[in-house]
Amino acid sequence: FLAEVRLVDIVQGRDRCGAHDPSEMWANDSCHKIQESLLSSASGYNNYRGILNWCVVMLVLSNARLFLENLLRYGVLVDPIQVISLFLNDPYSWPAACLVIVSNVFVLVALYTERQLELVGYLVHCINMATILTFPAAVVLLVPSVTPAGGAFVLGVYTILFLKLYSYKDVNMWCRELSTAKAKKLFNGGNRTVCYPGNLTIRDMFYFVFAPTLCYELNFPRSPKIRMSFLLRRLFEMVRCLISWMIPVIQSSMKPLEDMDLSRMFERLLRLAVPNHLLWLVFFYCFFHSSMNFTAELLRFGDRQFYKDWWNSETVTYFWQNWNIPVHKWCLRHFYKPLLRRGFSKIVSQSAVFFLSAFFHEYLVSVPLRMFRLWAFMGMMVQLPLAWFVGRFLRGNYGNAAVWISLIIGQPFAVLMYVHDYYVLHYRQEAD
Amino acid sequence: FLAEVRLVDIVQGRDRCGAHDPSEMWANDSCHKIQESLLSSASGYNNYRGILNWCVVMLVLSNARLFLENLLRYGVLVDPIQVISLFLNDPYSWPAACLVIVSNVFVLVALYTERQLELVGYLVHCINMATILTFPAAVVLLVPSVTPAGGAFVLGVYTILFLKLYSYKDVNMWCRELSTAKAKKLFNGGNRTVCYPGNLTIRDMFYFVFAPTLCYELNFPRSPKIRMSFLLRRLFEMVRCLISWMIPVIQSSMKPLEDMDLSRMFERLLRLAVPNHLLWLVFFYCFFHSSMNFTAELLRFGDRQFYKDWWNSETVTYFWQNWNIPVHKWCLRHFYKPLLRRGFSKIVSQSAVFFLSAFFHEYLVSVPLRMFRLWAFMGMMVQLPLAWFVGRFLRGNYGNAAVWISLIIGQPFAVLMYVHDYYVLHYRQEAD
Repeated sequence: FLAEVRLVDIVQGRDRCGAHDPSEMWANDSCHKIQESLLSSASGYNNYRGILNWCVVMLVLSNARLFLENLLRYGVLVDPIQVISLFLNDPYSWPAACLVIVSNVFVLVALYTERQLELVGYLVHCINMATILTFPAAVVLLVPSVTPAGGAFVLGVYTILFLKLYSYKDVNMWCRELSTAKAKKLFNGGNRTVCYPGNLTIRDMFYFVFAPTLCYELNFPRSPKIRMSFLLRRLFEMVRCLISWMIPVIQSSMKPLEDMDLSRMFERLLRLAVPNHLLWLVFFYCFFHSSMNFTAELLRFGDRQFYKDWWNSETVTYFWQNWNIPVHKWCLRHFYKPLLRRGFSKIVSQSAVFFLSAFFHEYLVSVPLRMFRLWAFMGMMVQLPLAWFVGRFLRGNYGNAAVWISLIIGQPFAVLMYVHDYYVLHYRQEAD
Repeated sequence: FLAEVRLVDIVQGRDRCGAHDPSEMWANDSCHKIQESLLSSASGYNNYRGILNWCVVMLVLSNARLFLENLLRYGVLVDPIQVISLFLNDPYSWPAACLVIVSNVFVLVALYTERQLELVGYLVHCINMATILTFPAAVVLLVPSVTPAGGAFVLGVYTILFLKLYSYKDVNMWCRELSTAKAKKLFNGGNRTVCYPGNLTIRDMFYFVFAPTLCYELNFPRSPKIRMSFLLRRLFEMVRCLISWMIPVIQSSMKPLEDMDLSRMFERLLRLAVPNHLLWLVFFYCFFHSSMNFTAELLRFGDRQFYKDWWNSETVTYFWQNWNIPVHKWCLRHFYKPLLRRGFSKIVSQSAVFFLSAFFHEYLVSVPLRMFRLWAFMGMMVQLPLAWFVGRFLRGNYGNAAVWISLIIGQPFAVLMYVHDYYVLHYRQEAD
């Protein structure tokens, strides 16, 4: 009778799982139940790890075809001398490299300032910070042998240093605000944490300078050991990205500049919207995943959250809060929250953060190109009304699509503006 | 003192969340903790819904550019008469449409066989099933005005019908195996379920024929009502897929055939590996998501599981078990489990399923093209060693990448073989 009930069950479409008796097997076979398709948003399903792998496979495959074609047609494309010439004009003068080496002076000044008395120290600190931003900019603008790529690299290094030293000074100030005696009493236990004056060493300072974070802490979380295989995989990714993506695309984007033909360059760059976006994605992976994880592994730096799930962002704000976590953390800790504490409203503080970000974007683009057009600044400030619009009118997957479109279309537009102006400024004049 | 402890907390890198007092806000700001990056497989994170949206946005954008370019260059490309000519040679003879209409005869035969006595019924049933497979194949092979596209469509319809009627007969047989009296007693409650002889109606039969499933049940789960907006969105997707993807790609793949130049066609098809894969993905979405959901919504058919998360499949077996759920369900219920019950081992039964699938793949390709090359058959049978290899040697994301590569590379290879042979058979002879 039981077997019959089971038989009735399947025929009527009910399920009783778990029958392993082979004679009952065909009976344990309910067919349909009410459920949504996985791709319907109603299903709430969102495990698409495979789609990410698909993207990587497609990138590698289409890249391999291109690579083979180029290799057959032109031989080895990557010319190391040409790559170096992006950064150097004159092989006997290395202004960018010198500037990077000089940056150590500012690091040491910041360290020794912290060791000195408060009032003079504060003045020296202010001068130091101002110099970090103005000195390399002045050198880049005045020394003609600095190339745009070299200049951008140097200014990037100095900007990161500026943010790091600002954080360093803030945290040490907070430490001084504590009565150090009490802090010592609290933390002289055996758990090997460092207390305020004990952290002012050259070793600690340079660990912070090289660590993949912008926010200073006296005791960073450390991973137990360096995993060799992890290190090698990240290194392999970096080399692969650089060789098979960055360099060919940069070289091919140099070609229209060499042709000096405005209309062709314009058309070409419009066509480059999608490659530009792919390049940005590869850059993101190479920098924020591969190289930062590489550095962190090497330094046994425990906190590997360099980005969050910005690919799912349904508002522009979410994207900006999650794609670059080190900068976001810095802005929150040393800019946004201090502003809130001083009584500014949330909207004013948020706008101030965007304004600061816009300033640095402009600084990193205009100075190396030696032209001030405010496109990068505008590009960042436009994010504010865009964020309002997307947050107000679009939800869920539509909001996500809007964020993607703004990334794919917006970025090459700004790039196009600069390339166009750079061309007009440098080559049109020569042609006349 | 408490504020000082909090201050010590941030300086030492500890967190106490939840302080909303603005004066303590800067203190509630722990910076770093040990954690992995999201893209590291160690993080176990897998919400990539945004990547799916990215793919859709990229497809639509690149498609829009192509569409605009073509529109500017050639005007409206989609010529309905040309599309129809894929299915029809002679506008006064519609063999494919006639065959589809004739298929109703077999449905009615299957229904009336179930109403008749057992022994004669079984014989009629066997003849009926055999005719469903052989009759359309014979017509397609013998009537010269059947085009390959029309033939494939007809054979597809008849194959689906074959699987459905096989399931219909099986389930009704299971019902007869029950003593129907007992079943009636059990299920004559008021919950409106139908019992065995009561289901043998024309209405019930045709609901099953049109329902998006291959497995018969007496009482399908039904959704409460037809959602108009859902229906329209699926319809819109189907039309968009058809107009902006399927037809242009099919037309452009017809061109090399018209050129009758073997070397160019070969090169072109090699280049079409990625477009072919994209087309397959669009076909998958259009057929398994849009059109099946559309039909299900129209028929208030509740079970919308037409596919599972095959995109995450880390073994070939997982892919074949999850990409086409209606066929997989049928194979499991009416072929694999009956074989197991008859005492065959798991491996033999699995191989038999692949063999059956290979037979139908070959049937659906060879007969409409009127040439028997066994490429489709081999393509399916090759999956067995491939599944063994991937399952044995590759894990996680590497296995997933292997499945993707076999999809991207394997499919166009088989297509290429058929196109090449078709060309040699039909055009080389004419050229000589």
